[in-house]
Amino acid sequence: MILLSHFDAFGEDRENSTEILLSTFKTRNNVQVVKLPTVFRKSGEILIKEIEKTKPSAVVMLGQAGGRTAVTPEKVAINIMDARIKDNEGNKPCDEPVVEGGPTAYFSTLPVREITEKLRKNGIPAAISYTAGTFVCNSLFYQIMHYLSENDLSIRAGFIHFPYLHRQVAERPQIPSMGLIEMQRAMEIILEVVEAKL
Amino acid sequence: MILLSHFDAFGEDRENSTEILLSTFKTRNNVQVVKLPTVFRKSGEILIKEIEKTKPSAVVMLGQAGGRTAVTPEKVAINIMDARIKDNEGNKPCDEPVVEGGPTAYFSTLPVREITEKLRKNGIPAAISYTAGTFVCNSLFYQIMHYLSENDLSIRAGFIHFPYLHRQVAERPQIPSMGLIEMQRAMEIILEVVEAKL
Amino acid sequence: MILLSHFDAFGEDRENSTEILLSTFKTRNNVQVVKLPTVFRKSGEILIKEIEKTKPSAVVMLGQAGGRTAVTPEKVAINIMDARIKDNEGNKPCDEPVVEGGPTAYFSTLPVREITEKLRKNGIPAAISYTAGTFVCNSLFYQIMHYLSENDLSIRAGFIHFPYLHRQVAERPQIPSMGLIEMQRAMEIILEVVEAKL
Amino acid sequence: MILLSHFDAFGEDRENSTEILLSTFKTRNNVQVVKLPTVFRKSGEILIKEIEKTKPSAVVMLGQAGGRTAVTPEKVAINIMDARIKDNEGNKPCDEPVVEGGPTAYFSTLPVREITEKLRKNGIPAAISYTAGTFVCNSLFYQIMHYLSENDLSIRAGFIHFPYLHRQVAERPQIPSMGLIEMQRAMEIILEVVEAKL
Repeated sequence: MILLSHFDAFGEDRENSTEILLSTFKTRNNVQVVKLPTVFRKSGEILIKEIEKTKPSAVVMLGQAGGRTAVTPEKVAINIMDARIKDNEGNKPCDEPVVEGGPTAYFSTLPVREITEKLRKNGIPAAISYTAGTFVCNSLFYQIMHYLSENDLSIRAGFIHFPYLHRQVAERPQIPSMGLIEMQRAMEIILEVVEAKL
Repeated sequence: MILLSHFDAFGEDRENSTEILLSTFKTRNNVQVVKLPTVFRKSGEILIKEIEKTKPSAVVMLGQAGGRTAVTPEKVAINIMDARIKDNEGNKPCDEPVVEGGPTAYFSTLPVREITEKLRKNGIPAAISYTAGTFVCNSLFYQIMHYLSENDLSIRAGFIHFPYLHRQVAERPQIPSMGLIEMQRAMEIILEVVEAKL
Repeated sequence: MILLSHFDAFGEDRENSTEILLSTFKTRNNVQVVKLPTVFRKSGEILIKEIEKTKPSAVVMLGQAGGRTAVTPEKVAINIMDARIKDNEGNKPCDEPVVEGGPTAYFSTLPVREITEKLRKNGIPAAISYTAGTFVCNSLFYQIMHYLSENDLSIRAGFIHFPYLHRQVAERPQIPSMGLIEMQRAMEIILEVVEAKL
Repeated sequence: MILLSHFDAFGEDRENSTEILLSTFKTRNNVQVVKLPTVFRKSGEILIKEIEKTKPSAVVMLGQAGGRTAVTPEKVAINIMDARIKDNEGNKPCDEPVVEGGPTAYFSTLPVREITEKLRKNGIPAAISYTAGTFVCNSLFYQIMHYLSENDLSIRAGFIHFPYLHRQVAERPQIPSMGLIEMQRAMEIILEVVEAKL
């Protein structure tokens, strides 16, 4: 079973593209969907509990990267929090480590190159990203990679950012966005590539 | 009947998003689709012949504006050609008028404000554009507006730019693009607004 | 004598790059500098009075185009006002003509091609722009071109947009900007090209 | 003494903004400037020899990040090479580690927050960057941090990216760039902040 996580809406947005995207994947075979609050540390704690409970073979965390033009599998999670806006519980950490004393960074253990290439071959704009930012997305990503490493769990895990959906920026038309159908197709492809590795 | 025009592929692209978009509108009631070569002046001459032959109640010209993030109804056509790349017959005019002695510019007679607002309300990123560029799109737009004006024809006409489709930039993932479903939905809305004005 | 105009600060900015730029040109030979309020119509009325009073041989209007990366001589002024934000007296016109019954557009009578090429040869990023927007800049540009046309005055006139200065976006570092020295050098070059035409 | 490094021109550029920038710093007190080839691994080997020879108190590596709008001190170097273009000796590594068996990443030991804030206060657009890319810049940065770590050397070190200079993009005016005076001023501020920490 693959555990998929998404966030709730944050900042000035009323929706999160990854929540809308995963709503149609809840009933898919071999997949379990978890909704996480856009809150530093708490999001990771909830997902770790879910991992312990469900024993997935892989964890694919999703997040919305407003302004990006493509589906971007993240290569690396770094041990720092630097928030430009408050998270959904009012936290705004600056230059704090995600895990005190943890290593500087972890690489994704998802096949990010293969995912990216297969997405492109299927007509979906995609690129490996080398920064997941320093907000809750990166923090969650780091927490999970650290937990798996500390507990010697050989579960593939990683984070993938998705753009805004078109409808989210209809009134802010200079911001890039993506169609829902293409995002859903991208998600299917991501699952196929990850499943083939299990 | 509404006459819809699109261009063929140009520059380094192998497809034109407006050709793909209109391929599903060829059999729609009350609509006729014309494919135009991306060639200065010739594109306008072909469309003028088509107008004379089919006597449409409105002319909606479409073009691909690679790099834009939204559907952009054009407000104004200007009497100048300034090409950065060659058109499909090798022409590369610089600082030449579209029509020698013609007025500086024409405004679209499509309801660009209403189209834009209805697109946005339906979740499609859209914005009025105040420049159709200085390549073949603007030139065609100017030729048609000039022809209608010179011949005192009260046919509504205008130009609408569409972004790249996602699949066109799959390997150039930093360029913004749009989903085909959303483009088709946009086209339906545009037709509804134009038809309501006839 | 060349009449140079700039605007005061508007929107959320506390400075206007063109005001800072022209502050060092006030004492230059053969040049006169006018500061205009960022107010629809009033800015044009003030500049027209100044033209009548000073009888310049050319009018070069400057404006700040926040977000642009280059010096951009404007090719065309269009007869429409469409404000996204209020001007400095609270006006926010939408789809109104600058001059009721005026022609759709006027082309600049400055040598925009020559200015652009000479700027580039001198290491200044520059490009001809085919839209001066629909805010006060375009409106002023249109008013002046219309006044000169209606009164058969053969005074060369046009509008040139400048980017933000670096210091204006120090805290908004993702917005493009330009160095003051390069802007001043650009202004010298613009004056040289315009003076050579008189 | 602070050791400053810059690269030679690479890709399609004939100049490197950091080479031009540092040309005026060669004779500055307490500073030594090294020019490095834009070549994977070799650049790091040369700089390591220079560190061993000159025993600097800090190492500030500079690189050109074409397309950025601000001075961007890099926070993190990652252990991966993924080149989109060839380096200056034709290498184009993909998904290879910079140092086989090295840790995933190193953080800069320069005061990146303080540098960024002081730059902004002095009117220079600046931002901490969380990705130095995956080309030679990141690779050099990683090599140096790894060398200092392996050898227990308490020399502050880090990497700072600079935009294009205006003159480099005069003919590509849609690309953001920066004035030379402001870059030089930025370099002075960076040196002041680093020196105050020694």
